[in-house]
Amino acid sequence: MEPFKIHILGCGSALPTLKHHTSSQVVEVRSKLMMVDCGEGTQVQLRKSRIGFTRIQSVFISHLHGDHCFGLMGLISTFGMLGRTSPLHVYAPGELGPMLKAQMEMFCQGLEYEVVFHAVDTTKCQVVYEDKSLTVSSIPLDHRIACCGYLFREKPTLPHIKRDMIDFYHIPVCYINNIKNGADWTTEEGDVIPNARLTTPAEKARAYAYCSDTRYMPALHRMVEGVDVLYHESTYDTPNEGRARLYYHSTARQAAMVARDAHVGKLVLGHYSSRYEDEKVLLIEAKKVFSNTLLGQEGQVIRL
Amino acid sequence: MEPFKIHILGCGSALPTLKHHTSSQVVEVRSKLMMVDCGEGTQVQLRKSRIGFTRIQSVFISHLHGDHCFGLMGLISTFGMLGRTSPLHVYAPGELGPMLKAQMEMFCQGLEYEVVFHAVDTTKCQVVYEDKSLTVSSIPLDHRIACCGYLFREKPTLPHIKRDMIDFYHIPVCYINNIKNGADWTTEEGDVIPNARLTTPAEKARAYAYCSDTRYMPALHRMVEGVDVLYHESTYDTPNEGRARLYYHSTARQAAMVARDAHVGKLVLGHYSSRYEDEKVLLIEAKKVFSNTLLGQEGQVIRL
Repeated sequence: MEPFKIHILGCGSALPTLKHHTSSQVVEVRSKLMMVDCGEGTQVQLRKSRIGFTRIQSVFISHLHGDHCFGLMGLISTFGMLGRTSPLHVYAPGELGPMLKAQMEMFCQGLEYEVVFHAVDTTKCQVVYEDKSLTVSSIPLDHRIACCGYLFREKPTLPHIKRDMIDFYHIPVCYINNIKNGADWTTEEGDVIPNARLTTPAEKARAYAYCSDTRYMPALHRMVEGVDVLYHESTYDTPNEGRARLYYHSTARQAAMVARDAHVGKLVLGHYSSRYEDEKVLLIEAKKVFSNTLLGQEGQVIRL
Repeated sequence: MEPFKIHILGCGSALPTLKHHTSSQVVEVRSKLMMVDCGEGTQVQLRKSRIGFTRIQSVFISHLHGDHCFGLMGLISTFGMLGRTSPLHVYAPGELGPMLKAQMEMFCQGLEYEVVFHAVDTTKCQVVYEDKSLTVSSIPLDHRIACCGYLFREKPTLPHIKRDMIDFYHIPVCYINNIKNGADWTTEEGDVIPNARLTTPAEKARAYAYCSDTRYMPALHRMVEGVDVLYHESTYDTPNEGRARLYYHSTARQAAMVARDAHVGKLVLGHYSSRYEDEKVLLIEAKKVFSNTLLGQEGQVIRL
């Protein structure tokens, strides 16, 4: 199966600590590398991860708080110094566009690749990127400022041909695509061989949802229904639920409620408040609601 | 003696590596903490150093390359989250002013302290900050863009009173200031006691010069004559002297030539190109010209 991995580069919240870096992840789907959020210091985290800098084709920014985007200029600038020539696509709330342009004029004179900015409407759930194997959609979130998550979803693939059956019935190569697309085969004797005997089902299309930062949204599960992995912020524990609400963040229990209601495969927690010496308290309360939960950690790679 | 220390937070060059952080230092003079340059990730380095965030009163930026200033917004933002109320003074090439203002409007709404911007003319050697015990002056450097170093110089202090002599001659308290300022004492019998018998000389006023980034400047030594410690960039070794010249940087040997010609106490190297696995090669070539040289390292504290 083609790789579909999440590399966690940073899963702390606004105040950087010696334990956690600010938000950033790399989503690897087949040969594509897409970054989600880019807090200060992300490029060093990227170097630690041994992910090839040049292979990152796009950066998706959830919102314009520093801990989610202050690393972007450094990254763009370093890509330039490393001799990048292929365009870098940046998807972010529209406000960032003019700021990015001004910063690049000041700090990145003579950059030899293009930075293509795509304004994302954070109030809508819509496809912001699409290619032959993948879509990336925005997920409106409820934060203090315009903010959205991102849903990475593979497109369904065609079923696999059973090579031995093709040989057995002497089916010509030119007809194989028809069979992949569901056709049956009629032999010279007029016997109909049903498609199911000639193929094995395609792998299930996988999906990953990144949801940070947000207040608990009781209806969020509808937008992330059935994803294999859900990253949902869990800045606080339940005793701090009032604070979570006040600052438009979630508790670990609330993250787990979304995971449970959306029937996801696995929940990954992150965006931890710096008040927690040990985030196990968050894990324990989430697991009570949704057992397949894990604590996001810098350097972790999650395979779908 | 009052403390005068240099805390090295980062001494790599433009490309951050796993070994070095981008440029930043904290100069501690008496109870004052002043930052010089602020590359990406400086706030995390600051946390590692255990220097109190709130005690930093000013940031001096040498030039507007990302590895010297991309950490500034994160620092300003974090100071806000930590509840800072005292103003932060930023000294930098004037171009940064409007950019900083725009970034703060976008990213730092509701900041409860003032960021006061001071435009520095990098072409002149002049005092940019002064208080009762210290001056900070700009040092014009020769880089690809407007760039200056900074010279931190203690003001001379008054000599110390010899308490036992004051008692011996029954000199009244109200006259002590005159003696500190150089007056002799005339006894009731008319004997003149020379000032030198009543005082011990003041400590030598100390000075630290920060010079990064720059091409070798044969006349730079005049501006940093006799400083106790000189930090001079040494991006390259002598075999790369052509490259140093091309990119407006210096070799370690050239840094040492400045140190030698300026009769400084100690030379600290830094701003190492990422090509050096081990910077000893830079230390060796510098020591041939100026023996009291050391390699700057993250976490190092240099006492003057």
